[in-house]
Amino acid sequence: MSMNALVYSAPNQKAWKLVPIPTIQSSTDAIVKLTSTTICGTDLHILKGDVPTVPRGTILGHEGVGIVQSVGNSVSNFKPGERVLISCITSCGKCVYCMSNLQAHCLNGGWILGNEIDGTQAEYVRIPYADTSLYAAPSALKDETLLMLSDALPTGFEIGVQSAKIAPGNTVAIVGAGPVGMAVLITAQFYCPASIIVIDTDDYRLAVAERNGATGVINPNRLTKNSILDEIMELLKSQGFSNVDVTGQNTIPGVDVAVECAGLPQTFDICQKIIAPGGRIANVGVHGRPVDLQLQDLWSQNVTITTGVVSATTTSMLLKILQSGKMNASVLVTHHFKLSQIEKAYDVFGNAANEHAIKMSIEADGI
Amino acid sequence: MSMNALVYSAPNQKAWKLVPIPTIQSSTDAIVKLTSTTICGTDLHILKGDVPTVPRGTILGHEGVGIVQSVGNSVSNFKPGERVLISCITSCGKCVYCMSNLQAHCLNGGWILGNEIDGTQAEYVRIPYADTSLYAAPSALKDETLLMLSDALPTGFEIGVQSAKIAPGNTVAIVGAGPVGMAVLITAQFYCPASIIVIDTDDYRLAVAERNGATGVINPNRLTKNSILDEIMELLKSQGFSNVDVTGQNTIPGVDVAVECAGLPQTFDICQKIIAPGGRIANVGVHGRPVDLQLQDLWSQNVTITTGVVSATTTSMLLKILQSGKMNASVLVTHHFKLSQIEKAYDVFGNAANEHAIKMSIEADGI
Amino acid sequence: MSMNALVYSAPNQKAWKLVPIPTIQSSTDAIVKLTSTTICGTDLHILKGDVPTVPRGTILGHEGVGIVQSVGNSVSNFKPGERVLISCITSCGKCVYCMSNLQAHCLNGGWILGNEIDGTQAEYVRIPYADTSLYAAPSALKDETLLMLSDALPTGFEIGVQSAKIAPGNTVAIVGAGPVGMAVLITAQFYCPASIIVIDTDDYRLAVAERNGATGVINPNRLTKNSILDEIMELLKSQGFSNVDVTGQNTIPGVDVAVECAGLPQTFDICQKIIAPGGRIANVGVHGRPVDLQLQDLWSQNVTITTGVVSATTTSMLLKILQSGKMNASVLVTHHFKLSQIEKAYDVFGNAANEHAIKMSIEADGI
Amino acid sequence: MSMNALVYSAPNQKAWKLVPIPTIQSSTDAIVKLTSTTICGTDLHILKGDVPTVPRGTILGHEGVGIVQSVGNSVSNFKPGERVLISCITSCGKCVYCMSNLQAHCLNGGWILGNEIDGTQAEYVRIPYADTSLYAAPSALKDETLLMLSDALPTGFEIGVQSAKIAPGNTVAIVGAGPVGMAVLITAQFYCPASIIVIDTDDYRLAVAERNGATGVINPNRLTKNSILDEIMELLKSQGFSNVDVTGQNTIPGVDVAVECAGLPQTFDICQKIIAPGGRIANVGVHGRPVDLQLQDLWSQNVTITTGVVSATTTSMLLKILQSGKMNASVLVTHHFKLSQIEKAYDVFGNAANEHAIKMSIEADGI
Repeated sequence: MSMNALVYSAPNQKAWKLVPIPTIQSSTDAIVKLTSTTICGTDLHILKGDVPTVPRGTILGHEGVGIVQSVGNSVSNFKPGERVLISCITSCGKCVYCMSNLQAHCLNGGWILGNEIDGTQAEYVRIPYADTSLYAAPSALKDETLLMLSDALPTGFEIGVQSAKIAPGNTVAIVGAGPVGMAVLITAQFYCPASIIVIDTDDYRLAVAERNGATGVINPNRLTKNSILDEIMELLKSQGFSNVDVTGQNTIPGVDVAVECAGLPQTFDICQKIIAPGGRIANVGVHGRPVDLQLQDLWSQNVTITTGVVSATTTSMLLKILQSGKMNASVLVTHHFKLSQIEKAYDVFGNAANEHAIKMSIEADGI
Repeated sequence: MSMNALVYSAPNQKAWKLVPIPTIQSSTDAIVKLTSTTICGTDLHILKGDVPTVPRGTILGHEGVGIVQSVGNSVSNFKPGERVLISCITSCGKCVYCMSNLQAHCLNGGWILGNEIDGTQAEYVRIPYADTSLYAAPSALKDETLLMLSDALPTGFEIGVQSAKIAPGNTVAIVGAGPVGMAVLITAQFYCPASIIVIDTDDYRLAVAERNGATGVINPNRLTKNSILDEIMELLKSQGFSNVDVTGQNTIPGVDVAVECAGLPQTFDICQKIIAPGGRIANVGVHGRPVDLQLQDLWSQNVTITTGVVSATTTSMLLKILQSGKMNASVLVTHHFKLSQIEKAYDVFGNAANEHAIKMSIEADGI
Repeated sequence: MSMNALVYSAPNQKAWKLVPIPTIQSSTDAIVKLTSTTICGTDLHILKGDVPTVPRGTILGHEGVGIVQSVGNSVSNFKPGERVLISCITSCGKCVYCMSNLQAHCLNGGWILGNEIDGTQAEYVRIPYADTSLYAAPSALKDETLLMLSDALPTGFEIGVQSAKIAPGNTVAIVGAGPVGMAVLITAQFYCPASIIVIDTDDYRLAVAERNGATGVINPNRLTKNSILDEIMELLKSQGFSNVDVTGQNTIPGVDVAVECAGLPQTFDICQKIIAPGGRIANVGVHGRPVDLQLQDLWSQNVTITTGVVSATTTSMLLKILQSGKMNASVLVTHHFKLSQIEKAYDVFGNAANEHAIKMSIEADGI
Repeated sequence: MSMNALVYSAPNQKAWKLVPIPTIQSSTDAIVKLTSTTICGTDLHILKGDVPTVPRGTILGHEGVGIVQSVGNSVSNFKPGERVLISCITSCGKCVYCMSNLQAHCLNGGWILGNEIDGTQAEYVRIPYADTSLYAAPSALKDETLLMLSDALPTGFEIGVQSAKIAPGNTVAIVGAGPVGMAVLITAQFYCPASIIVIDTDDYRLAVAERNGATGVINPNRLTKNSILDEIMELLKSQGFSNVDVTGQNTIPGVDVAVECAGLPQTFDICQKIIAPGGRIANVGVHGRPVDLQLQDLWSQNVTITTGVVSATTTSMLLKILQSGKMNASVLVTHHFKLSQIEKAYDVFGNAANEHAIKMSIEADGI
């Protein structure tokens, strides 16, 4: 039995081709027939050959929604025919990391889909440890909305918002307005920050950010005389937030929280320059090289810097918020394709700035 | 120099009369000319003679907004002419309780205005420890909005929302929809709960709650066959929140958080009956007698019960959220009076159900 | 194949008799051959007929250490021949409660051993969900030490110490010095409280407490003129802890934390009387009837009251502390028996005060 | 009226000379007659000319114990004749930072003693904001013990232990065993970590660490084939802590917490190399230049890095623990001098390795 799938062939080569349909290999597996999948920035990195854990011949993709086809005999939470959300994190539920809520580092799973094992850009996918890696999909929620919960929204929420301890009344800067930056923007609003300033060089994305809760935006390329920090302080002032203490003294400029969502030394550096004493920098971006940490300035500033990969411990909670209607996840979805058009979807996603693309919704053919 | 003020004369007696204008008694005092004040449920208790700490002859009131008239010589944060918000909590800033952020129990202050010392239902008030008990009033905010930050909103937020650790996705029940219950309703939304169900016997207040973020309301008097818990579970189900676990088993019914805002044994009892395992009950209501704690049921339920008086540690943060436009505090203000009409305001407030009253805005005459 | 076991026959009747050796019933089961077991106060309640979930004919006991005999085919963490600690809490690892770290309320487990299913006071026991309900036993630790980690120590630590947020420098009172009160005493010291005062009517237990970290003890029966609160304040004063603030004012008397470990209305009441503003009462005791909650006093005191059954989320951590030599758990073990003498062990444990008994170590015969 | 004091004259020049006795300048000041003072590593930095905020002519020192001589007229917590501990942090108690418990960044204070204003290496010192910057000294505690609470112990505890969230059972590495590293070692034990490994190139300091709670020590200069990480893993293994998960898989090597106490790029780098997934790096050291942050490795490791200057919010708590006898602070004091010998004390402290010096106790002459 064969199916169509998008396969990583070699650096800079992918192939849409027929491969065998996966089968149950362990009693804890489920086979899911995908109804929707999508593309992550990480898939582009893999294609460039930057992720050495991915063997040639691997089916790409770690996000998806589908229907359970079959389950191993110790799977008890799911039955064939049920609609499920696939988490980008596979969790065995019983290693030392899963038991300490650090499923990102699961010894038997973690991020393995479309990485160490075949992924979701296919008609079918095998999900190990199905009981602790799938989520029942509420019928009221559309595929394209649920898709945002496979990776983008829990990553933005857990590694951006929760790690940075965003709290009511905080001033927040988000550096980088790609899919994960947007996920941070949307989920940061769960905690009612007083200001959210989004920084990016793409005016389209800044416009999207403004429609979705940003209280101010900054395009560093358009700054003429102000530094980014100066510009932030002017934006805060325009909201009525004084840089003068009740004692009449100037407070130390900066934001309570800076979230790095681009993965570059210069964007990390912006975070260091704009953080206030007592502030938190959450690094969500994937970095390829060291950055200069300005400890000669920061040692005395009582700042906290966090990093991480999502553990998907908040997926159930995010599902509830989606159901309550208090979050609009579909704003992330800018383009729709059929699975058979996935190569075209990659072209659009790979050219996101020109295409005004954030996330793709890629549906199974024949739905 | 004399002024008009509302004085507690004896149980069930108050007098609107001329009294001396207060003067600086200590170097940390400020005298504030009130531009607005309001009435709290506690003022009604005092008038009934229920609060033995209040000497006859005390000017009532612990909420207000005004203009600083004069300051003692060690006051450095405020100058005459500045507009300020008066906190219901006077904080010395240097006793053991203030230093551990429990200003409610300040050895030199706490709730003393309109209680142990003269209060704010007057033309002028003396504020001890002005530097740590007043807040600079942002010019963009109206008096009637700021007034809600003297007591109602920080009480609802600190003792209801923060004590109960309301978190994104939670199911919340608020028992009692008076001014403080409404404050809980408004500020609970800082944390994006999935459901907020408000329970009260007054249909008008329930209608106000529905317009201000309640996802469901229950009037216990109108329940025919359902218990309150049954009704809550039906409301949650109607939002799509299943009472069935992913394993197909029924979960244990109840809400994550119940906030008691009425101060009666029967309303506290509702909280005990509707709380889920792992849930939190925050008692905000003022109680006059013991309640039965159902420990034979609750001992095993991993519940948390909290009580408290506001410490006003979040007043600055609430001011920022008001400035950001993310909270509509003025919805609490149902009636407007001039200070010279305060006795009429008491009549309306004391007959809140018939008058559809929540909070009064009482402005200085001649403004 | 038959084995010896202690069976609950009817209220006030137990039988030491031959029963069939348990066998694997599900792929997630393990069969463990017990090398040690013990008796819990709850077993006495069951025998009195107070626990309606226990069917007649059930083997008693929910604590134990042993050797894995056989495992179902989806058990991957344990193999026959390995030495294991049995947790009193059976956790399926995949229901909504397990996934939110509230394994006490596991829909497929929780406290079921010696309750809804056969328990550990036998030669063999079947452990459902073995991968998430057993712990590898470090070879350096003796059975009698490990036994204390099946229930007593994690219960004292999670429901007493963690729930009460005991912190460095705190003043702590423990009301009730039975096995769980002693477990609170031992594990409270992980957080370096400044004072731990133990309250009990049994002088022997108070003496044990003093040898194990109590900074003071109170036998309420021996108080002549002081109230318990007065006595506590004198003990604190004798440590040099002044009841006078730096401002020279008397602080409000009381302890930061009171842990209820007896399960009686009068012991809960002591906790209410001795708690300071801002304090925490952790109820660990099993209660059979309601208690009077003094809300007319406590509503304004910013106190927190917690309840609960252990979820055993800290068992691994407690094992590490045992291994590090920083906790002496064996002090809880006052008596040793062979399994065939278990009825005698019950006699001693049921007469704990006269026998100076805390916990029994009951070893398999022939070891 | 003149007194003796140690004055910073110019880079690399200090003078022990007669200067005027300080007087009350503001109503919130106190004048304290020092009975003891000490020297901090920061004082050596100032002398080198590395701290540009220090004007020539400033009296050095920010630690001390003494007797209140006189107070301004709004000081209410202290009276002449009372014995007090001087905090290195001056806190006004009423600016935006003090009100958010970030007294390190107090707009009117912070670390100003021996920096922006005259300090404690003198016979007398003026303490601004005395009510919120001094602590009543318990009579049972000796000067040399109290001295450790002016800076070293709260810095180690707040910026090392609390920032790193050291918890029971954790594995901890302390990189640098100077006075602050020792303070981290002592106060980390409040939380019962399972292992504390101290890393330094000075064997004497490692021996002191071993006598004071280190479970293992590493001198990097003496490692022949092991990396520091390998050596740590062997030390943990020797305690019985397996690097094999219950599933039989190798866990990822590293410690839960690494505390940087040396202020050098290479010591910060050790912390990055030894931290486990989910771990916390607390930087306590004072850095003079940027460090390379290995984000290409750490971005995915769910680590937290913190920095900071002490706010002294835990000084009262540390005093209680000292009084309870549960901390031995005097182990930090290796040498005793009279104030008139302070230049000799500087010589010893500046040559700490050869002199086996940690902290100096410098007493007023004539005591």
